Amino acid sequence: MPLDTPPGYEAHSNETLAGYLAEVPAVAARLGGGAQDWRVEEVGDGNLNLVFKAHGPDAGVAVKQALPYVRLVGESWPLPLNRTSFEHAALVEEARHAPDLVPEVLHFDDTLALVVMELLEPHIIMRQGMIKAVRYPRFVDDITTFMARTLFFTSDLALTAAEKKEKVARFCGNHALCKITEDLIFTEPYMIAERNRWTAPQLDAIAAEFRADGDLKVAISRLKLKFMAHMEAMIHGDLHTGSVMVTQDETKVIDPEFAFYGPMGFDVGAVIANLLIAYFSQDGHATADDPRDDYQDWVLEVVEGTWTDFRAKFLALWQAHGAGDAYPAPLFEADAARLAAEREAYMDRLFADTLGFAAAKMIRRILGLAHNIDLELIEDPDVRAACETRCLRLARDMMVNTSSYATIGDVTAAARERRHD
Amino acid sequence: MPLDTPPGYEAHSNETLAGYLAEVPAVAARLGGGAQDWRVEEVGDGNLNLVFKAHGPDAGVAVKQALPYVRLVGESWPLPLNRTSFEHAALVEEARHAPDLVPEVLHFDDTLALVVMELLEPHIIMRQGMIKAVRYPRFVDDITTFMARTLFFTSDLALTAAEKKEKVARFCGNHALCKITEDLIFTEPYMIAERNRWTAPQLDAIAAEFRADGDLKVAISRLKLKFMAHMEAMIHGDLHTGSVMVTQDETKVIDPEFAFYGPMGFDVGAVIANLLIAYFSQDGHATADDPRDDYQDWVLEVVEGTWTDFRAKFLALWQAHGAGDAYPAPLFEADAARLAAEREAYMDRLFADTLGFAAAKMIRRILGLAHNIDLELIEDPDVRAACETRCLRLARDMMVNTSSYATIGDVTAAARERRHD
Repeated sequence: MPLDTPPGYEAHSNETLAGYLAEVPAVAARLGGGAQDWRVEEVGDGNLNLVFKAHGPDAGVAVKQALPYVRLVGESWPLPLNRTSFEHAALVEEARHAPDLVPEVLHFDDTLALVVMELLEPHIIMRQGMIKAVRYPRFVDDITTFMARTLFFTSDLALTAAEKKEKVARFCGNHALCKITEDLIFTEPYMIAERNRWTAPQLDAIAAEFRADGDLKVAISRLKLKFMAHMEAMIHGDLHTGSVMVTQDETKVIDPEFAFYGPMGFDVGAVIANLLIAYFSQDGHATADDPRDDYQDWVLEVVEGTWTDFRAKFLALWQAHGAGDAYPAPLFEADAARLAAEREAYMDRLFADTLGFAAAKMIRRILGLAHNIDLELIEDPDVRAACETRCLRLARDMMVNTSSYATIGDVTAAARERRHD
Repeated sequence: MPLDTPPGYEAHSNETLAGYLAEVPAVAARLGGGAQDWRVEEVGDGNLNLVFKAHGPDAGVAVKQALPYVRLVGESWPLPLNRTSFEHAALVEEARHAPDLVPEVLHFDDTLALVVMELLEPHIIMRQGMIKAVRYPRFVDDITTFMARTLFFTSDLALTAAEKKEKVARFCGNHALCKITEDLIFTEPYMIAERNRWTAPQLDAIAAEFRADGDLKVAISRLKLKFMAHMEAMIHGDLHTGSVMVTQDETKVIDPEFAFYGPMGFDVGAVIANLLIAYFSQDGHATADDPRDDYQDWVLEVVEGTWTDFRAKFLALWQAHGAGDAYPAPLFEADAARLAAEREAYMDRLFADTLGFAAAKMIRRILGLAHNIDLELIEDPDVRAACETRCLRLARDMMVNTSSYATIGDVTAAARERRHD
């Protein structure tokens, strides 16, 4: 039995999409020519949606349409179409604060759960580049600008409480996507769950060890509660290296359909987790002809830069635009140094959150349902398991002994050490 | 110029209300007889609203109607009428979890911003009783049941994330009332603000000291951020001893118009703060014929019981009904002891929040806009200032050195000590 969909909803295909786009003046004008001149191709390789590229004589566009279920699994796992309205709302909000770092939205159709965006060419998914040891010189600067600006400007530090609560309410409806995160990241990897998978039998023992690790289960449960109850800023919610499209000159953050009001550290942690996964996975891709040591050094520099520059930019924004209802300026008028010290302390707390969430993201990619090609493409399961074990060991320590990592340098030092264990 | 009100809104008066109630069958039936038999009297002594008592041959009802401004101040301080819809939603939610501890709602009129409730007679406002040294033997048991059940059952510990986010969104609209709290409790007492007042000149020095106290201003700002961003449970939002009506046999919690999703410690802290204010104020009411030492001992027993019983009841509910998405049961199936220990740790964190918020409520009643009659009725300003100073000194220490109070016994011991300083 097909899933219920709202009246007017129909999934588009390569055959039907051009006719639809022809009726949208802004899109038709951008493509140039007429529908008969356009080449449409479904290219979605994500887990959830249809993604089309449409090329016209003048330009191309990308079209993302939600299906009423998880594409990867099928109709047995329904998922509400309204996720596209949250993705659209998030893209609009992000564009306000970081217009050069997100795709331009050309058209949104709520009934069809469909967004038309500028086509990002020749950008590729950053994860794919990292597997080939490609360096992205813009990444640190761009991703830290994106995070600092989108998180700061949607937080209580920049907004009035009324403005913020209005946005919180707007995104509360995206709970079905939040639930995916709650289950797949914060719960299932730590218990026997049908959807879990890992490199077996090599990781059987460590998976069992994690499931029996009381400290770890308490730590992940505290993080889960924070994810559900600490509504600090509009977060992207899925900010891994597969949600970043890059060239040597440009960085674009895509796919904010998991966006909602949550803890800032979840976004920053997602970036750092995926960089660390890329770091550990290099040992599975290195060959005598293609050693990866220098690249691994670069990846750890990126990890360090991501936190360091994010912290500096966030603090600078707070200094310049801290007009929100939290930490009201008049309270500290004669006390600038005290406020400055508290801002540093705030960033220290955010750093601890970041490490915890990063660890959660590292573990779920190895013991949970959704894995990363960084590791999956390592063919030899013994080699893959060795990389994965290092990643898991670091993550476990980051989550349980968070306070022993005082600086991002402590994290990269531990990563190096694990590799040489 | 009168404030804009929605079409159909009109403030009722002693003359018009009976005619309105006659049109509400449930209310008319309860009152008995006809409109001509009813006696209506406006009795509001609160800061915000009209409150009527209507008596009929069979029974009485209470009618609360919002004005489009703060009653205490007038039209120069507008306040949205929709606060009544949040009060009504909160009363309905509370009644689900603690039906015997809130007034029964008989009728709600959104357009008129009006709620009709059972009339609580012969109940009095608890604060008034405490000023006369009246003991309320039901209070600890009832208030801890009210708090444990309303907080637990609206939290992530009891609800699915989807259920909880729906409630969060519902209450986000109550931001105007939250703003009052944010300004009057978390900001203005710590700065020069037109609305502040205190016993002058006796408290001029300590008020200035607090305004220059960097540690205190950082602590209050962290609490403010928590109030704005930690959406843990539906809280009453104004749970002082003026929002509790009592007899020797009954306790009813009224006036949840400040309700929203916030930190649980704000409600528990409000109760403890107002008990501590009552404790310190007794020295201003005691006379040779009416010593208050025994009563003060009783008040501190109530403080201890409030935390101890709340903690025990909340833990028991978690044990029996912890079906929410936080701390999922399957994760701890083989680890019951570890989960039990984490629940204790959760309560320890909630205790620290409680002390911080309690301190904030104590300070605002002495240095901010809205004072309590516990202290205000002390006629001799020197005596009043002495009581207030003890209360302020304890509050300052509770907020800044929270971790030095490991148990509620530490708090009551410190309160005793301050009194004998």
